[in-house]
Amino acid sequence: MNTFTNARSNVMNFLNEAANRFPQAISFASGRPADQFMRMDQYLGGLATFADHVARNESIPVSRAIAFLSQYGRTAGIINSLVARQINNDEGIVCELEQILITAGCQEALALCIRALCGGPDDVLLTRSPAYIGVTGAADSQGIAICGFPCTHEHELVSNLLQAIDGLRTRGKRPRAFYLVPTFDNPSGVTLSREIRKEVIALCAAQDIVILEDDPYGMFSFEAEKVPAMYTLDQHECVVYLGTYSKTLCPALRVGYAVMPLRLTSGPENLLERIVQMKSFGTLNTSQLSQSIVGGLLLNHECSLTTLVAPMRELYRVQRDCMLAALRRTFGANGELVCWNVPKGGFFLTVDLPFEFEAQEAWQCAADYRVIVLPLSFFALVQGEEKRIRLAYSNATAPQIEQGIQNLGEFVRRRLSR
Amino acid sequence: MNTFTNARSNVMNFLNEAANRFPQAISFASGRPADQFMRMDQYLGGLATFADHVARNESIPVSRAIAFLSQYGRTAGIINSLVARQINNDEGIVCELEQILITAGCQEALALCIRALCGGPDDVLLTRSPAYIGVTGAADSQGIAICGFPCTHEHELVSNLLQAIDGLRTRGKRPRAFYLVPTFDNPSGVTLSREIRKEVIALCAAQDIVILEDDPYGMFSFEAEKVPAMYTLDQHECVVYLGTYSKTLCPALRVGYAVMPLRLTSGPENLLERIVQMKSFGTLNTSQLSQSIVGGLLLNHECSLTTLVAPMRELYRVQRDCMLAALRRTFGANGELVCWNVPKGGFFLTVDLPFEFEAQEAWQCAADYRVIVLPLSFFALVQGEEKRIRLAYSNATAPQIEQGIQNLGEFVRRRLSR
Repeated sequence: MNTFTNARSNVMNFLNEAANRFPQAISFASGRPADQFMRMDQYLGGLATFADHVARNESIPVSRAIAFLSQYGRTAGIINSLVARQINNDEGIVCELEQILITAGCQEALALCIRALCGGPDDVLLTRSPAYIGVTGAADSQGIAICGFPCTHEHELVSNLLQAIDGLRTRGKRPRAFYLVPTFDNPSGVTLSREIRKEVIALCAAQDIVILEDDPYGMFSFEAEKVPAMYTLDQHECVVYLGTYSKTLCPALRVGYAVMPLRLTSGPENLLERIVQMKSFGTLNTSQLSQSIVGGLLLNHECSLTTLVAPMRELYRVQRDCMLAALRRTFGANGELVCWNVPKGGFFLTVDLPFEFEAQEAWQCAADYRVIVLPLSFFALVQGEEKRIRLAYSNATAPQIEQGIQNLGEFVRRRLSR
Repeated sequence: MNTFTNARSNVMNFLNEAANRFPQAISFASGRPADQFMRMDQYLGGLATFADHVARNESIPVSRAIAFLSQYGRTAGIINSLVARQINNDEGIVCELEQILITAGCQEALALCIRALCGGPDDVLLTRSPAYIGVTGAADSQGIAICGFPCTHEHELVSNLLQAIDGLRTRGKRPRAFYLVPTFDNPSGVTLSREIRKEVIALCAAQDIVILEDDPYGMFSFEAEKVPAMYTLDQHECVVYLGTYSKTLCPALRVGYAVMPLRLTSGPENLLERIVQMKSFGTLNTSQLSQSIVGGLLLNHECSLTTLVAPMRELYRVQRDCMLAALRRTFGANGELVCWNVPKGGFFLTVDLPFEFEAQEAWQCAADYRVIVLPLSFFALVQGEEKRIRLAYSNATAPQIEQGIQNLGEFVRRRLSR
């Protein structure tokens, strides 16, 4: 078990321990969607809708469609054409249904992609540091080498990525894939500009590196204009797009997907085929109950989630604004000692503190100041994040946010006055 | 890609190709449960039942229980205590809920177990040949060495297993796990006696080998007396029990589970903990929609599936009898040239033919005789199965069975008269 797994275990253990030990503490730790939209009981009708759709398409009785859906099924999925239409409508992604694999949550897509891409002994997965814990964990648990390079500011990204690639090649390693969340990043909250996206694509295409673009938060933009998904900017067919219905519908469905560029769905290296085969030995196929429910919902919403997501997006924006206002009220007087970023969407922001904030400080905050936050060092693969924390505003109410930031402010003031 | 993956691909490709090319052919190829019981629309009410149960247990409003269930959840599962009661009632298995991991279908449990057990470069997974294709595929796709030893008759099992173990150890290999379906085996249809089970357990315990007892068909016994699950006969805590709701409820739910003996849920080697961690990086947690539906169903049936399964078991018995009668009518006159076994439950039987029957013969049968059967060589890891075929009677109607066996008879007669 190496340090990355330990980091992941740290986070999970910390979350569970702190939540159990200090149930009164306000938590900004978990990036869950807001509980008030978590109503999977309201989605069950999707099964009947989708069964009707299948029955009509196949000219069979509905009961036969239900039997078909209840059985084992196609490993690549059965709602691929509806998903293709939805991501076309909502994200401008143009693809054929044959380019899509439906997975048991996006985490499965991610784990399969990195296993298929980094199968050789010298293959390495690249990622920014700090990085989503699911990618470091998936790499480590499958024995895949991962190289995290520092990237505090957007303008460093391309040069630091190139430096990491060169460093790996010098040591005889083969960088095979680059994982990132370009839009409303977890944990940093940062969104990459269109220009940087294009530069990253050009660099990775030239270096024969596949980009894994993870986009769980793309539907939750707080501004009218949104930077397009890297997949849509890719002229080189080197971007794999990873999506999920966990945030737009609910995590309990466990439905995610990967969209491969055409180049990776044919030829001797056929990534999609290899991943489908791996999945057939891992989970066989994604629950056709969950797929039917998602499919029915997409049919009922003309293959766009914009309307369904609108109230969620609005709530997350209000909660972000509430957190920003609370941060200004609490830390405004501290000048540049405490600063934070302003995410344009998504679930997270980060705060820079004038002192190191790691497990011990987080525990003290939870115990003595009744607020749970996550040190960014929990997500780090290299040094440099010791003074930063991640705050999730996605699943906390406005009063909780106000109180929680006030509590954090007390901790910071007490600490600075020592 | 080695021969096992090829074998698996062969089977899948053959099934798909043959079914597509010859839609009029009667298929005994796929071991699917009978379509008439595949009604997942009738199970959806389980969610409300389970949500009420959670709300009562936790003293929270039902809406909060629904939100809780709709969210991300515990990797090990949320219906473990109900599953523990069900397998106690139906299989006589005694365990604590902490010994259970709920998985995205039993295939995930199997894939995780062999990955966790066979992590070293010299570790080997043992299995009988022929073997369920899911185990050879899962081993191969994860780079796990597998050793299949011949076992045509039950009385050879222990000596052949010992010989395989000795052979591996001589070559510096470490046999770590032994996978088998002891009850109504796929593909052979054979059930191991209580005595053989005990001998296998004693041998594996002495050799420090974990037994992976896969039991998808245990609930479908056609006789009053059933041989107990190996897990219940195990005095050495070396048997892991793998179960599924795919056959008793439906495959579309994708809910399976692993039950670990206490010895493997603690200490430095804690198999369960390692598997839970792997799963958290692979599929995070099993769909809580599917888990809730299974949980609600178990609550509604006093944690026993006996009543629910009774009509299925009866149908499968009738279909087995129908197939046996058709085999007698068709091949009775051939004396010992063509013979078959009489499974005491489950979905499959095997037929021994007086000539080699492999891919080419199977294709000819489908094309010219309108019956699809699977050569046992598709499941084989060693030579010796070239004259045998597997027939599934689980998802074919009585008229289909009669016609299909008659068609097979014509092929055999024509072939023998050449």
